[in-house]
Amino acid sequence: MPTKPWRRSRDWSNGGSVTTRNDPDAPGGPGEQVLLGQAASPGLAIGPLARLDPARPDPHAESAATGTEDGRERLSAAVAQARRELELLSADNAGDLGGEVLGFQIALLDDPELLEPAEPVLARGAGAQAAWEAAIGELIDLYARDEDEYFQARAEDLRDLRQRVLGALASGDAAATEVPQRAVVIAETLSPSCFLEIDWTQVRGAALIHGSATSHVAMLARARGVPLVTGLGEGLRDLPADVPAVLDAVDGRLIVDPSQQTRVAYDERLSERAAADEADRAYSARPATTADGTPVRVYVNVDDPAVLAASDPGICDGIGLTRTEFLFRDGPADEATQLAAYRRIMAWADGRPVTIRTLDAGGDKPVPGVTPAGESNPFLGQRGLRLSLARPDLFRTQLRALLRAAADGPLKILLPMVTLPRELAAAREMLADARRDLAAEGIDVPDTPLGIMVETPSAALRPFDFDADFYSIGTNDLVQYVMAAARDVDAVAQLQDARDSAVLELIARVAEAARQRGVECSVCGEAAGDAESIPCLLDAEVRALSVPPAAVGRTKRAVAGHRTRSGNGA
Amino acid sequence: MPTKPWRRSRDWSNGGSVTTRNDPDAPGGPGEQVLLGQAASPGLAIGPLARLDPARPDPHAESAATGTEDGRERLSAAVAQARRELELLSADNAGDLGGEVLGFQIALLDDPELLEPAEPVLARGAGAQAAWEAAIGELIDLYARDEDEYFQARAEDLRDLRQRVLGALASGDAAATEVPQRAVVIAETLSPSCFLEIDWTQVRGAALIHGSATSHVAMLARARGVPLVTGLGEGLRDLPADVPAVLDAVDGRLIVDPSQQTRVAYDERLSERAAADEADRAYSARPATTADGTPVRVYVNVDDPAVLAASDPGICDGIGLTRTEFLFRDGPADEATQLAAYRRIMAWADGRPVTIRTLDAGGDKPVPGVTPAGESNPFLGQRGLRLSLARPDLFRTQLRALLRAAADGPLKILLPMVTLPRELAAAREMLADARRDLAAEGIDVPDTPLGIMVETPSAALRPFDFDADFYSIGTNDLVQYVMAAARDVDAVAQLQDARDSAVLELIARVAEAARQRGVECSVCGEAAGDAESIPCLLDAEVRALSVPPAAVGRTKRAVAGHRTRSGNGA
Repeated sequence: MPTKPWRRSRDWSNGGSVTTRNDPDAPGGPGEQVLLGQAASPGLAIGPLARLDPARPDPHAESAATGTEDGRERLSAAVAQARRELELLSADNAGDLGGEVLGFQIALLDDPELLEPAEPVLARGAGAQAAWEAAIGELIDLYARDEDEYFQARAEDLRDLRQRVLGALASGDAAATEVPQRAVVIAETLSPSCFLEIDWTQVRGAALIHGSATSHVAMLARARGVPLVTGLGEGLRDLPADVPAVLDAVDGRLIVDPSQQTRVAYDERLSERAAADEADRAYSARPATTADGTPVRVYVNVDDPAVLAASDPGICDGIGLTRTEFLFRDGPADEATQLAAYRRIMAWADGRPVTIRTLDAGGDKPVPGVTPAGESNPFLGQRGLRLSLARPDLFRTQLRALLRAAADGPLKILLPMVTLPRELAAAREMLADARRDLAAEGIDVPDTPLGIMVETPSAALRPFDFDADFYSIGTNDLVQYVMAAARDVDAVAQLQDARDSAVLELIARVAEAARQRGVECSVCGEAAGDAESIPCLLDAEVRALSVPPAAVGRTKRAVAGHRTRSGNGA
Repeated sequence: MPTKPWRRSRDWSNGGSVTTRNDPDAPGGPGEQVLLGQAASPGLAIGPLARLDPARPDPHAESAATGTEDGRERLSAAVAQARRELELLSADNAGDLGGEVLGFQIALLDDPELLEPAEPVLARGAGAQAAWEAAIGELIDLYARDEDEYFQARAEDLRDLRQRVLGALASGDAAATEVPQRAVVIAETLSPSCFLEIDWTQVRGAALIHGSATSHVAMLARARGVPLVTGLGEGLRDLPADVPAVLDAVDGRLIVDPSQQTRVAYDERLSERAAADEADRAYSARPATTADGTPVRVYVNVDDPAVLAASDPGICDGIGLTRTEFLFRDGPADEATQLAAYRRIMAWADGRPVTIRTLDAGGDKPVPGVTPAGESNPFLGQRGLRLSLARPDLFRTQLRALLRAAADGPLKILLPMVTLPRELAAAREMLADARRDLAAEGIDVPDTPLGIMVETPSAALRPFDFDADFYSIGTNDLVQYVMAAARDVDAVAQLQDARDSAVLELIARVAEAARQRGVECSVCGEAAGDAESIPCLLDAEVRALSVPPAAVGRTKRAVAGHRTRSGNGA
């Protein structure tokens, strides 16, 4: 049963609006049609539109007079065929998020309860198709009706599965998804398995009537770097195929039949982007050093281990931040589940250091059954370590799983939202208890460094007072608290500035404390991967940055372009 | 029509619960009855219970067969008598909050629209009482139904008025409120005018079944120092009169028939309190100096000028903070209304400096039609100066009124919730514009110092960067942002500590910048009047404190007991 998820976004409501350009001051030419939606996976693409409407079997094609037994057999065969198709797709997408989406669908097909609602429909001889629709329809309804986007997005996976089984019932064969090369795909929605069938090295992007940035398809698109705009609205339905279009998945719009002027402007942006990507790529594989030879460690941030398969661990110095909230999407995860996930991450890192942050629930990340409801100011509420200390049962389970995973390699435990030294001391004590308990069970675990996120002004003002084995500065929250301006309130958005001198003073203070105490200080907020902020961080004597895998090249390139003040050069 | 008010409290919901003491570890003896409510006005009292139930005229006493003309005359006479009674009471309470409450009721009686709904009732010959009930009942309903406590509390004033006019109709005479001396009054509710009729030098406190801390009666009780506990629940109704009781309006409870042990414990607390009050009073009238002779300025905070009448300006060095939100309770106030209010405050201060803060709406102080609705984290949202700069129309009006009031004496303008130097610069420019506009209208105004509240970490980290004529440190908000812990979230309440070393470092930094820049730095949060925090503030080189009028003696006494580190002694 769906409950509140940990994941919440701002305003991805489907809507979309259409404008016909007549404003001479607007970029682009007059007369072209602009549809507005949400940028769900960033990028730019230019190409002819290609409609993607998977053939849906006619609901009347199947005679209602088929026998119960026949219906049951046909449904069973279709499910088996859908399963085979998913297995095949899955083989091409093993280990990454695509594989996980397909695995979810396969697991659903394997669930004996899935077909239970089909039985009474089959029993009255209504046929395999009606029975399947009944079974899957009930589940889709349940998810789609949920107020929460997380579950609404899961409904998308179920619709995907409905379509695949219906296809198998109709044709007895997989409907191949054919899209012309260099096209921009337009569709009502795009199912994850359909997304995975398309060869995105040949197709340039996708524009959808519905969809959301939190859907599996959006996650897949971001992981693969496919530009995607969702929520473009009904205006998309009536567009002719083959008409040229610009898909601007940076600003979230589709410009249909662009003017010469618009085309030239976007061609330029595309070339610039391609050149920058090319330059970034060249830096990815090398170690990062500043122009004067100061080495800088570049780690990656991991939100979901499923996306790691698409990344090469060779491009980074390890994992600087693993957000473990993915394990708590539907509520607390048990020790075995957590251990398995942490082990997968350790295996990927292949001996490089792996920093795993304990649950950072609360704030804008509610966890069902864990985070308090109705806080007036959740960013200033019971979140991160505060919540873990208030829920020792959950915290103990996570610490045990982390300690056990530490047997596989150099694991570091990171505590989020630390305010006072006594909180770190309490966590350290619980960690020692967990180690003792494991030893009593015959499980010896290595010593594990325990560090703190520096994201409250309180912690940033007194780094020396914390007995921390390492510091990780979370610039997103630190800026929010220093400026007393929430990052999700548009009216105060201009105050979100990691290059602000007060923020940089605090960062430099933490870096200096780390140097004097002989421990590492890294930065893991968005600023760490921002080319304009990186010089400021390096000037504040930060020498370790943790960024999303896709930002590693850009980050190393920005590091290489900077000359440090200290001039630690070769 | 009631709209959202600026005033909101935490959880003053009526409820109340009853406990019979059987826990041997609890303070007090076994068997005594404890009713739990909310401390609406702090203090302690011991005395016999005295029930206060104003006799309500029997609704059937009046014959329905009175003529229309007769009814109209009787109602008119009763309203006139109620008005006379209120005028008399008002004379004893001129100038202060009591006078204002009574003035509100008089103004209501003078409103020709008030009796409009009475007309059809009179016309059908239903009598004066029914007509009055119809007229006032409609209004009470409207206010009482409002979701907001501010308007629910206003309904209390209307019920008060209903009762008074009904009394006049029934008896033709004012019902004198007789309460035995040294008693603790118990009642369902207590109307403001009834409160004002009681001689509180003889009566010790009040315990109510209903009521809230935001009601006028609670405000009156706080202004007069009368202990008041509200929301004690239905258990209060059945208590016998004359039984002895302890009213603990510190912890919000009534202990009925207290044991010897409880009595002794409370007697001790009462003596200690009386001794402390006595000692505090002795300090009120003298200038504040530390034990080693360092002078410290002690200002008062003003939330509502109506309470000033009860205070002697001679006890303070002026007004350190005037919260102007009282002018915006029902929405924006016009220039004339603001000017009149500021002039009243200047007149009270009698030549002493008066600091008036521009509107600090937002956060936990919504203003109808001004503050944004639905912010996810209002404490980190568009509030204080941010809002004033976004609403230049409102800001301009307030600046004009402040500049005009400055003709009456040394007025200083204080900006709340400042984050960046550019915000102060923008406000300074608008102030210069307002001065120019006034000059163009032939109104010359003196130069007015413009200072900033230091309550964001951003401002506290860079006091030198602000071209401020003075600094006022708001410790309540500063602590909240440094600790990233909202003051209205109970789970993080233990993080609210103005004596925290990180907070004190920032306070010392601002005080030092003020010293070097040759301008004043005062502290106006709760810490300024807290005996335990005052030594820390003095050690941080703060030399000006602004506190509620009732805390002046306590503050000066705490200052006198402290020896400064710098030893600036005589």
